Amino acid sequence: MAISMSSASVPIFVTMLGNLSKCLGKARAHAEAKKFDPNVLVTTRLAPDMLPFKSQVQIACDSAKLCVARLSGVDAPRFEDTEATLSELEERIAKTLAYLESVPREKLDGTEDKQVSVPRRDQEPMRFTGEHYLKHFALPNFFFHVTTAYALLRHNGVDLGKADYLGGR
Amino acid sequence: MAISMSSASVPIFVTMLGNLSKCLGKARAHAEAKKFDPNVLVTTRLAPDMLPFKSQVQIACDSAKLCVARLSGVDAPRFEDTEATLSELEERIAKTLAYLESVPREKLDGTEDKQVSVPRRDQEPMRFTGEHYLKHFALPNFFFHVTTAYALLRHNGVDLGKADYLGGR
Repeated sequence: MAISMSSASVPIFVTMLGNLSKCLGKARAHAEAKKFDPNVLVTTRLAPDMLPFKSQVQIACDSAKLCVARLSGVDAPRFEDTEATLSELEERIAKTLAYLESVPREKLDGTEDKQVSVPRRDQEPMRFTGEHYLKHFALPNFFFHVTTAYALLRHNGVDLGKADYLGGR
Repeated sequence: MAISMSSASVPIFVTMLGNLSKCLGKARAHAEAKKFDPNVLVTTRLAPDMLPFKSQVQIACDSAKLCVARLSGVDAPRFEDTEATLSELEERIAKTLAYLESVPREKLDGTEDKQVSVPRRDQEPMRFTGEHYLKHFALPNFFFHVTTAYALLRHNGVDLGKADYLGGR
Protein backbone atom coordinates (compact mmCIF):
# COMPACT_ATOMS: atom_id res chain seq x y z
CA MET A 1 0.00 0.00 0.00
CA ALA A 2 1.42 3.37 -1.00
CA ILE A 3 2.12 6.16 1.49
CA SER A 4 -0.90 8.25 2.55
CA MET A 5 -0.80 12.04 2.87
CA SER A 6 -1.81 11.81 6.53
CA SER A 7 0.91 9.30 7.44
CA ALA A 8 3.58 11.33 5.60
CA SER A 9 2.76 14.47 7.56
CA VAL A 10 1.19 14.33 11.05
CA PRO A 11 3.20 11.46 12.63
CA ILE A 12 6.50 12.94 11.39
CA PHE A 13 5.64 16.40 12.71
CA VAL A 14 4.38 14.99 16.03
CA THR A 15 7.45 12.83 16.61
CA MET A 16 9.96 15.54 15.74
CA LEU A 17 8.20 18.29 17.71
CA GLY A 18 7.94 15.97 20.70
CA ASN A 19 11.68 15.30 20.44
CA LEU A 20 12.36 19.04 20.14
CA SER A 21 10.32 19.71 23.26
CA LYS A 22 12.44 17.20 25.18
CA CYS A 23 15.58 18.99 23.90
CA LEU A 24 14.20 22.24 25.36
CA GLY A 25 13.70 20.46 28.68
CA LYS A 26 17.33 19.31 28.59
CA ALA A 27 18.41 22.86 27.77
CA ARG A 28 16.63 24.15 30.88
CA ALA A 29 18.25 21.45 33.02
CA HIS A 30 21.66 22.30 31.54
CA ALA A 31 21.23 25.98 32.39
CA GLU A 32 20.19 25.13 35.94
CA ALA A 33 23.22 22.87 36.40
CA LYS A 34 25.54 25.57 35.01
CA LYS A 35 23.70 28.29 36.93
CA PHE A 36 22.93 30.57 33.99
CA ASP A 37 19.55 32.01 32.98
CA PRO A 38 18.02 29.44 30.61
CA ASN A 39 16.27 32.20 28.70
CA VAL A 40 19.60 33.48 27.39
CA LEU A 41 19.21 30.62 24.91
CA VAL A 42 15.96 32.06 23.54
CA THR A 43 17.72 34.80 21.54
CA THR A 44 20.91 32.98 20.54
CA ARG A 45 21.77 32.87 16.81
CA LEU A 46 24.24 30.98 14.61
CA ALA A 47 24.89 34.12 12.52
CA PRO A 48 23.85 37.74 13.06
CA ASP A 49 21.55 37.58 10.04
CA MET A 50 19.94 34.27 10.97
CA LEU A 51 16.78 34.04 13.05
CA PRO A 52 17.20 33.46 16.81
CA PHE A 53 16.41 30.22 18.60
CA LYS A 54 12.87 31.27 19.53
CA SER A 55 12.03 31.90 15.86
CA GLN A 56 13.45 28.53 14.85
CA VAL A 57 11.06 26.86 17.31
CA GLN A 58 8.13 29.09 16.35
CA ILE A 59 8.63 28.42 12.64
CA ALA A 60 9.11 24.68 13.19
CA CYS A 61 5.70 24.73 14.89
CA ASP A 62 4.12 26.90 12.22
CA SER A 63 5.48 24.98 9.27
CA ALA A 64 3.89 21.80 10.66
CA LYS A 65 0.65 23.58 11.60
CA LEU A 66 0.28 25.41 8.29
CA CYS A 67 1.05 22.31 6.27
CA VAL A 68 -1.71 20.36 7.98
CA ALA A 69 -4.11 23.33 7.83
CA ARG A 70 -3.53 23.97 4.13
CA LEU A 71 -3.92 20.32 3.19
CA SER A 72 -6.84 19.45 5.48
CA GLY A 73 -8.74 22.74 5.36
CA VAL A 74 -9.13 22.53 9.16
CA ASP A 75 -8.53 26.00 10.65
CA ALA A 76 -5.44 26.21 12.83
CA PRO A 77 -5.05 28.36 15.95
CA ARG A 78 -3.08 31.56 15.46
CA PHE A 79 -0.09 32.14 17.73
CA GLU A 80 1.26 35.63 18.36
CA ASP A 81 5.01 34.94 18.50
CA THR A 82 5.35 36.49 21.94
CA GLU A 83 7.33 33.66 23.56
CA ALA A 84 10.26 34.94 25.61
CA THR A 85 11.20 31.89 27.72
CA LEU A 86 12.00 28.25 27.08
CA SER A 87 8.86 27.28 29.01
CA GLU A 88 6.71 29.44 26.73
CA LEU A 89 8.32 27.80 23.71
CA GLU A 90 7.50 24.38 25.18
CA GLU A 91 3.88 25.56 25.52
CA ARG A 92 3.91 26.67 21.88
CA ILE A 93 4.99 23.17 20.88
CA ALA A 94 2.30 21.61 23.09
CA LYS A 95 -0.43 23.79 21.52
CA THR A 96 0.82 22.87 18.06
CA LEU A 97 0.79 19.17 18.93
CA ALA A 98 -2.79 19.49 20.22
CA TYR A 99 -3.88 21.00 16.90
CA LEU A 100 -2.01 18.41 14.81
CA GLU A 101 -3.55 15.55 16.76
CA SER A 102 -7.04 17.04 16.49
CA VAL A 103 -7.19 16.95 12.68
CA PRO A 104 -9.05 13.90 11.36
CA ARG A 105 -6.69 11.83 9.19
CA GLU A 106 -9.32 11.48 6.49
CA LYS A 107 -9.21 15.23 5.88
CA LEU A 108 -5.58 14.85 4.86
CA ASP A 109 -5.84 11.67 2.83
CA GLY A 110 -6.64 12.23 -0.82
CA THR A 111 -5.16 15.75 -0.90
CA GLU A 112 -2.36 14.77 -3.28
CA ASP A 113 -3.77 16.92 -6.11
CA LYS A 114 -5.27 19.71 -4.00
CA GLN A 115 -4.08 23.17 -5.04
CA VAL A 116 -2.02 24.73 -2.26
CA SER A 117 -0.99 28.36 -2.22
CA VAL A 118 1.76 29.71 0.05
CA PRO A 119 1.78 33.51 0.44
CA ARG A 120 5.03 35.43 0.07
CA ARG A 121 5.88 39.01 0.97
CA ASP A 122 5.98 41.30 -2.09
CA GLN A 123 5.74 38.39 -4.50
CA GLU A 124 3.13 36.20 -6.10
CA PRO A 125 2.23 33.24 -3.87
CA MET A 126 3.93 29.93 -4.52
CA ARG A 127 1.52 27.35 -5.92
CA PHE A 128 1.86 23.60 -5.58
CA THR A 129 -0.14 20.42 -5.67
CA GLY A 130 -0.64 19.00 -2.17
CA GLU A 131 1.81 16.17 -2.72
CA HIS A 132 4.57 18.39 -4.13
CA TYR A 133 4.01 20.94 -1.37
CA LEU A 134 4.36 18.29 1.35
CA LYS A 135 7.44 16.57 -0.08
CA HIS A 136 9.37 19.52 -1.50
CA PHE A 137 8.40 22.47 0.66
CA ALA A 138 6.70 21.67 3.97
CA LEU A 139 8.90 18.76 5.09
CA PRO A 140 12.27 20.28 4.05
CA ASN A 141 11.29 23.58 5.70
CA PHE A 142 10.10 21.85 8.86
CA PHE A 143 13.28 19.80 9.23
CA PHE A 144 15.37 22.91 8.57
CA HIS A 145 13.97 24.70 11.61
CA VAL A 146 13.98 21.67 13.92
CA THR A 147 17.60 20.92 13.04
CA THR A 148 18.69 24.56 13.37
CA ALA A 149 17.08 24.73 16.82
CA TYR A 150 18.95 21.54 17.80
CA ALA A 151 22.20 22.93 16.34
CA LEU A 152 21.84 26.13 18.38
CA LEU A 153 21.48 24.16 21.60
CA ARG A 154 24.49 21.96 20.74
CA HIS A 155 26.52 25.05 19.80
CA ASN A 156 25.70 26.44 23.26
CA GLY A 157 26.91 23.37 25.09
CA VAL A 158 23.66 21.51 25.80
CA ASP A 159 24.44 17.79 26.03
CA LEU A 160 22.33 16.38 23.19
CA GLY A 161 22.97 13.64 20.65
CA LYS A 162 21.42 12.35 17.47
CA ALA A 163 19.12 10.11 19.51
CA ASP A 164 17.53 13.24 21.04
CA TYR A 165 16.82 14.55 17.55
CA LEU A 166 15.53 11.29 16.09
CA GLY A 167 13.95 10.13 19.33
CA GLY A 168 12.73 6.84 20.56
CA ARG A 169 15.74 4.56 20.36
CA MET B 1 -3.08 8.62 -6.09
CA ALA B 2 -1.13 8.01 -2.91
CA ILE B 3 2.57 8.78 -2.59
CA SER B 4 4.97 6.19 -4.04
CA MET B 5 8.15 5.07 -2.27
CA SER B 6 10.25 6.21 -5.24
CA SER B 7 8.75 9.70 -5.37
CA ALA B 8 9.13 10.14 -1.58
CA SER B 9 12.83 9.35 -1.71
CA VAL B 10 14.93 9.92 -4.86
CA PRO B 11 13.57 13.33 -6.01
CA ILE B 12 13.86 14.76 -2.48
CA PHE B 13 17.43 13.51 -2.09
CA VAL B 14 18.40 14.68 -5.58
CA THR B 15 16.95 18.18 -5.12
CA MET B 16 18.46 18.74 -1.69
CA LEU B 17 21.91 17.36 -2.59
CA GLY B 18 21.92 19.51 -5.73
CA ASN B 19 21.12 22.55 -3.59
CA LEU B 20 23.86 21.59 -1.12
CA SER B 21 26.37 21.30 -3.95
CA LYS B 22 25.50 24.86 -5.06
CA CYS B 23 26.03 26.02 -1.45
CA LEU B 24 29.52 24.51 -1.56
CA GLY B 25 30.18 26.43 -4.77
CA LYS B 26 29.10 29.65 -3.05
CA ALA B 27 31.36 28.81 -0.11
CA ARG B 28 34.34 28.50 -2.47
CA ALA B 29 33.48 31.83 -4.11
CA HIS B 30 33.12 33.48 -0.68
CA ALA B 31 36.55 32.23 0.38
CA GLU B 32 38.12 33.51 -2.84
CA ALA B 33 36.52 36.94 -2.38
CA LYS B 34 37.70 37.08 1.24
CA LYS B 35 41.10 35.61 0.30
CA PHE B 36 41.10 32.72 2.76
CA ASP B 37 41.73 29.06 2.03
CA PRO B 38 38.28 27.59 1.24
CA ASN B 39 39.36 24.25 2.69
CA VAL B 40 39.44 25.75 6.19
CA LEU B 41 35.68 25.23 6.02
CA VAL B 42 36.08 21.46 5.57
CA THR B 43 36.94 20.86 9.23
CA THR B 44 34.79 23.52 10.90
CA ARG B 45 32.38 22.36 13.64
CA LEU B 46 29.43 23.87 15.56
CA ALA B 47 30.59 22.21 18.79
CA PRO B 48 33.82 20.36 19.64
CA ASP B 49 31.90 17.09 19.98
CA MET B 50 29.92 17.48 16.75
CA LEU B 51 31.14 16.13 13.43
CA PRO B 52 32.98 18.55 11.12
CA PHE B 53 31.57 20.02 7.91
CA LYS B 54 33.09 17.31 5.72
CA SER B 55 31.36 14.57 7.74
CA GLN B 56 28.02 16.38 7.52
CA VAL B 57 28.31 16.34 3.72
CA GLN B 58 29.58 12.76 3.61
CA ILE B 59 26.75 11.52 5.84
CA ALA B 60 24.12 13.52 3.92
CA CYS B 61 25.33 11.67 0.81
CA ASP B 62 25.45 8.31 2.54
CA SER B 63 22.06 8.59 4.21
CA ALA B 64 20.47 9.18 0.78
CA LYS B 65 22.56 6.47 -0.87
CA LEU B 66 21.99 3.85 1.82
CA CYS B 67 18.25 4.55 1.96
CA VAL B 68 17.89 3.94 -1.76
CA ALA B 69 20.21 0.92 -1.66
CA ARG B 70 18.41 -0.72 1.28
CA LEU B 71 14.98 -0.19 -0.23
CA SER B 72 15.80 -1.02 -3.85
CA GLY B 73 18.39 -3.75 -3.30
CA VAL B 74 20.58 -2.08 -5.95
CA ASP B 75 24.21 -2.11 -4.77
CA ALA B 76 25.61 1.34 -4.06
CA PRO B 77 29.19 2.45 -4.64
CA ARG B 78 31.35 2.59 -1.52
CA PHE B 79 33.11 5.89 -0.77
CA GLU B 80 36.20 6.01 1.45
CA ASP B 81 35.61 9.29 3.33
CA THR B 82 38.94 10.72 2.21
CA GLU B 83 37.63 14.11 1.03
CA ALA B 84 39.81 16.99 2.25
CA THR B 85 38.66 19.87 0.01
CA LEU B 86 35.37 21.49 -0.94
CA SER B 87 35.92 20.34 -4.52
CA GLU B 88 36.30 16.74 -3.40
CA LEU B 89 33.07 17.06 -1.38
CA GLU B 90 31.32 18.39 -4.50
CA GLU B 91 32.59 15.29 -6.34
CA ARG B 92 31.21 13.07 -3.55
CA ILE B 93 27.80 14.69 -4.04
CA ALA B 94 28.04 14.24 -7.82
CA LYS B 95 28.89 10.53 -7.47
CA THR B 96 25.98 10.09 -5.05
CA LEU B 97 23.60 11.82 -7.46
CA ALA B 98 24.77 9.55 -10.28
CA TYR B 99 23.95 6.48 -8.19
CA LEU B 100 20.55 7.82 -7.06
CA GLU B 101 19.57 8.62 -10.63
CA SER B 102 20.71 5.21 -11.88
CA VAL B 103 18.30 3.22 -9.71
CA PRO B 104 15.13 2.17 -11.57
CA ARG B 105 12.09 3.69 -9.86
CA GLU B 106 10.23 0.39 -10.01
CA LYS B 107 12.82 -1.18 -7.69
CA LEU B 108 11.75 1.31 -5.01
CA ASP B 109 8.00 1.23 -5.54
CA GLY B 110 6.22 -1.44 -3.54
CA THR B 111 8.90 -1.60 -0.83
CA GLU B 112 6.56 -0.22 1.89
CA ASP B 113 6.56 -3.53 3.79
CA LYS B 114 10.11 -4.63 2.98
CA GLN B 115 12.14 -5.48 6.09
CA VAL B 116 15.01 -3.03 6.46
CA SER B 117 17.87 -3.48 8.90
CA VAL B 118 20.24 -0.67 9.89
CA PRO B 119 23.45 -1.85 11.57
CA ARG B 120 24.63 -0.17 14.78
CA ARG B 121 27.95 -0.33 16.57
CA ASP B 122 27.88 -2.62 19.62
CA GLN B 123 24.10 -2.96 19.49
CA GLU B 124 21.48 -5.02 17.74
CA PRO B 125 20.57 -3.57 14.32
CA MET B 126 17.49 -1.34 14.11
CA ARG B 127 14.68 -3.02 12.17
CA PHE B 128 11.93 -1.21 10.29
CA THR B 129 9.44 -1.71 7.51
CA GLY B 130 10.50 0.17 4.37
CA GLU B 131 7.85 2.84 4.80
CA HIS B 132 8.64 3.50 8.47
CA TYR B 133 12.37 3.54 7.73
CA LEU B 134 11.95 6.13 4.96
CA LYS B 135 9.61 8.46 6.87
CA HIS B 136 10.99 8.18 10.40
CA PHE B 137 14.67 7.46 9.99
CA ALA B 138 16.14 8.07 6.53
CA LEU B 139 14.47 11.42 5.73
CA PRO B 140 14.92 13.00 9.21
CA ASN B 141 18.55 11.86 9.27
CA PHE B 142 19.20 13.14 5.73
CA PHE B 143 17.69 16.56 6.44
CA PHE B 144 19.66 16.76 9.71
CA HIS B 145 22.99 16.53 7.90
CA VAL B 146 22.04 18.78 4.96
CA THR B 147 20.78 21.47 7.36
CA THR B 148 23.80 21.18 9.65
CA ALA B 149 26.12 21.59 6.64
CA TYR B 150 24.15 24.69 5.61
CA ALA B 151 24.23 26.03 9.20
CA LEU B 152 28.02 25.62 9.35
CA LEU B 153 28.47 27.67 6.18
CA ARG B 154 26.11 30.39 7.47
CA HIS B 155 27.90 30.40 10.82
CA ASN B 156 31.14 30.99 8.93
CA GLY B 157 29.81 33.97 7.01
CA VAL B 158 28.89 32.44 3.64
CA ASP B 159 26.08 34.50 2.12
CA LEU B 160 23.30 31.92 1.82
CA GLY B 161 19.55 32.14 2.40
CA LYS B 162 16.63 29.78 2.72
CA ALA B 163 16.21 29.80 -1.07
CA ASP B 164 19.66 28.20 -1.39
CA TYR B 165 18.57 25.41 0.95
CA LEU B 166 15.15 24.83 -0.60
CA GLY B 167 16.30 25.64 -4.14
CA GLY B 168 14.48 26.44 -7.27
CA ARG B 169 12.46 29.52 -6.45
